Amino acid sequence: MTFGDVIREHRRSFADSAALVDGDLRLTWSELDARTNRLANALTSAGVNAGDRILWLGQNSFRVYELLGAAAKIGAMVCPGYWRWAAPEMVFAIEDFDPKVVIWQQEEIGETVAKARAETADRKTLWLRHDGAEADEDGYERFLASGSGDDPEREVDPDTALLVIYTAAISGRQCGSMLSHRNLLTMGANGAWLGDIGQESAFLNAGPMFHIGNYQLYGIPVFVQGGKNVVVRRVDPEQLLPLLVRERCTHAYLMPPTIVRIVELNREAGHDLSFLRATIAPQLWDGMATTDSSRFARNGGGEGRAYGQTEVTGLAVTQATGGAGIGNAGRPGPFAMVRILNGEGKECAVGEAGEICVRGDLVHLGYWNRPEINAERFRFGWWHTTDLGRRESDGTISFLGTTTRMLKSAAENIFPAEVENCLESHPAVREAAVIGVPNERWAQDVKAVVVLVQDATATAEELIEHCRERIASYKKPKTVEFVDAIPRTGAGAKDYEALDERFGGGGYPGTESLGAGR
Amino acid sequence: MTFGDVIREHRRSFADSAALVDGDLRLTWSELDARTNRLANALTSAGVNAGDRILWLGQNSFRVYELLGAAAKIGAMVCPGYWRWAAPEMVFAIEDFDPKVVIWQQEEIGETVAKARAETADRKTLWLRHDGAEADEDGYERFLASGSGDDPEREVDPDTALLVIYTAAISGRQCGSMLSHRNLLTMGANGAWLGDIGQESAFLNAGPMFHIGNYQLYGIPVFVQGGKNVVVRRVDPEQLLPLLVRERCTHAYLMPPTIVRIVELNREAGHDLSFLRATIAPQLWDGMATTDSSRFARNGGGEGRAYGQTEVTGLAVTQATGGAGIGNAGRPGPFAMVRILNGEGKECAVGEAGEICVRGDLVHLGYWNRPEINAERFRFGWWHTTDLGRRESDGTISFLGTTTRMLKSAAENIFPAEVENCLESHPAVREAAVIGVPNERWAQDVKAVVVLVQDATATAEELIEHCRERIASYKKPKTVEFVDAIPRTGAGAKDYEALDERFGGGGYPGTESLGAGR
Repeated sequence: MTFGDVIREHRRSFADSAALVDGDLRLTWSELDARTNRLANALTSAGVNAGDRILWLGQNSFRVYELLGAAAKIGAMVCPGYWRWAAPEMVFAIEDFDPKVVIWQQEEIGETVAKARAETADRKTLWLRHDGAEADEDGYERFLASGSGDDPEREVDPDTALLVIYTAAISGRQCGSMLSHRNLLTMGANGAWLGDIGQESAFLNAGPMFHIGNYQLYGIPVFVQGGKNVVVRRVDPEQLLPLLVRERCTHAYLMPPTIVRIVELNREAGHDLSFLRATIAPQLWDGMATTDSSRFARNGGGEGRAYGQTEVTGLAVTQATGGAGIGNAGRPGPFAMVRILNGEGKECAVGEAGEICVRGDLVHLGYWNRPEINAERFRFGWWHTTDLGRRESDGTISFLGTTTRMLKSAAENIFPAEVENCLESHPAVREAAVIGVPNERWAQDVKAVVVLVQDATATAEELIEHCRERIASYKKPKTVEFVDAIPRTGAGAKDYEALDERFGGGGYPGTESLGAGR
Repeated sequence: MTFGDVIREHRRSFADSAALVDGDLRLTWSELDARTNRLANALTSAGVNAGDRILWLGQNSFRVYELLGAAAKIGAMVCPGYWRWAAPEMVFAIEDFDPKVVIWQQEEIGETVAKARAETADRKTLWLRHDGAEADEDGYERFLASGSGDDPEREVDPDTALLVIYTAAISGRQCGSMLSHRNLLTMGANGAWLGDIGQESAFLNAGPMFHIGNYQLYGIPVFVQGGKNVVVRRVDPEQLLPLLVRERCTHAYLMPPTIVRIVELNREAGHDLSFLRATIAPQLWDGMATTDSSRFARNGGGEGRAYGQTEVTGLAVTQATGGAGIGNAGRPGPFAMVRILNGEGKECAVGEAGEICVRGDLVHLGYWNRPEINAERFRFGWWHTTDLGRRESDGTISFLGTTTRMLKSAAENIFPAEVENCLESHPAVREAAVIGVPNERWAQDVKAVVVLVQDATATAEELIEHCRERIASYKKPKTVEFVDAIPRTGAGAKDYEALDERFGGGGYPGTESLGAGR
């Protein structure tokens, strides 16, 4: 089955039920099937064929789902770009993704788009504006209306790409993760099981559509099950509250501050929100919406105890499988295989840290236009996430951090996240950051920078000994520095560059050798 | 992912949890992984390779799951035969399925097996007895122990056959429906969503393992989710009650008479059965076990409102998708596409009867060794179920009966089930059976045999008019006979042969032309 087949089925099963709501726009499954036929045929007439690409440069819109449906019917791909991209980033995406069609938005980002368009004017790209008047010559609606309403009835391989999401700027530039029809339908099945999603479900798409999260919980599961997706362009609690009520949304992608504000607003409005099953931060809802008895909610899903990434189509490991345990991420669900592998592709022993690797129908097809990275990341037949993990004695998996920063001591690879994790398990340590300092003979020595718990004490010797007992000896810090706070980057991550500068860090193995070496 | 991968994953996630229980035998996932490795390697040494076949001639046993696991790891197929087969039927299965290995049972069926074995003695078949002593030279356990415990690590295509179930004796002989790894894993995902099955689930396999029902609800979903399958050889309420309690089974495949007896027995025993979530006939449990809030149970799953067959790996249409409606079967779930097709492969209009056809990951690979039937049944790219159905105005599907009995009026095909269905919708009609009587010019005339509701009256003219208003005119009965009861076959079906004899039926189109003609 393809993503297009999903729409074809729902047109038959739920012809007059709402599929998409966006402002005043309401589309039934029957209308969505007809519109995606028109759009698919119009795209074909514009020269878009199987394997061709369409870039969306706009905010959230029902049209992203519509484009996915149309592209699915002809085997093309859709990338919902990040609307906050600066012009050079848009230019990069256009040159890298090489779309035949760009659908763009004037409001808020029109000027930036215009710059990117001017810089790529030599390309044969069809530009369609989605927020203009219906009659606009270069408008989305007029383009769509030009296509025939007949189903294109093309054979589309479910193992080809449909949704592309830019992410993973590990090597310094973003890569487009290609998710196939099968990936998305499996995500739908997985999400429906996790969240008890069915045709009666209505999901408020208040998370960004250029990110995997909003699709996982629960845009795609609701779509695949024939439910209703309500799309909003921006997150405005004053508008969201009446919308939740009007559409009787059962699920919503909302961050804690938005929830707090909605709850506050509803103290006055007094709406009955009992239809809303809160999956994230149920305690914030103040008793208004805590009826979620789904497997995901009752197993701690709202508390972030799971592991995933765009490249595994969202969540591959959750507590929904087997409940809570030692590891912070849970266990792989029925659609994924997970192994903790060492540098030779051999499985690490229980309790030993290694790279989290995944196989199965949730693993993406690879990055668009990155054959070398793909070959390396798929080595030994497993998708290498670049994240560090550990299988615990009860079978659960701990996510220990990313491995994209790595130290080298002699021939051994050391992942700072693992050493930090170990240091932070010491009762006196509040936070730790690990850097490498050059050592002529051994390439690097491990140095720990540590913030102690208030009023607690611990010597460097004690902390080194603590590590020696818990992780392989070559990974233990050789020196420890005590500081009042770990410096942070603007994005809130530990600022390793600042630490390197302050404490003499350096001698790191090159990024290029990261994959091949481990 | 393959069925073997499922076991490999669970060995890591749930090493010490019970996978299979059978009498005093308990196997953890770790033990099952090791035993299936040994068995797979022993089978390989015995010359069983990818695509080869293994036949089980015995009652329910944990070894059926174990054989599936071992076969999965080397790409072989397993057929759990019907243990009540007479010797000639066993011979047919051996000659048709052509197994390299037969695993057989001495108890109850040893004599029959011996006859079949003698009659097929010229074949190079390895016979292994499963219910002998561990040390028996031709015993299952000794054979298994001879294999290495290493994972064979063979690449197995998930789209190859694993489980084969004999069914569909439409053309007079049974056909082995081949279910692939993907079919079974999809059944697992579908069943887990329907029944809210997870690793905490424990299923009592009290249904026959040569039939799809016990696998669907919920043997395979529980296996795929890492839960516990408790297997019993025979259905004995006196033994089942303490077993349910000991193993705290959350689900059980039990027929109403067995439930009634268990409830009766428990009036005295007084066990707390609240762990048991009854999906079938909850009212019979008398309040003891009615905690099933799964999607399947709350949407009428226990009342048979669904449609499926072995060839679509169990249930393809249920009320779990969108709830109850006009049609008696519900709607296709997220893993199946369903079309009501006419003889030219075109979709019937809403309200018009046609053949129920299915596509998607639940559709089997075809019948073993039946290329011509497969080609015909997969025509137009859709699996033709031979069952008659109708898409209703609300998108639900009505299952109207089987089409394997067909009448012919001029060039038109008439399915008795459809006409009977129409007659039975008349308030005065309790039951109807439709036969064809020879007509030189039009091949056959439609004759209805009708049982009226007690004290109700209706004339032949009224009933013919009732049909004329509701179905295409050529399908309406030309004559009506009123009887006190429709004769039944030993199996409880309407006895059309007896009706033909009594009322002059005949002139039916040959079975061979059934498929091609419609």
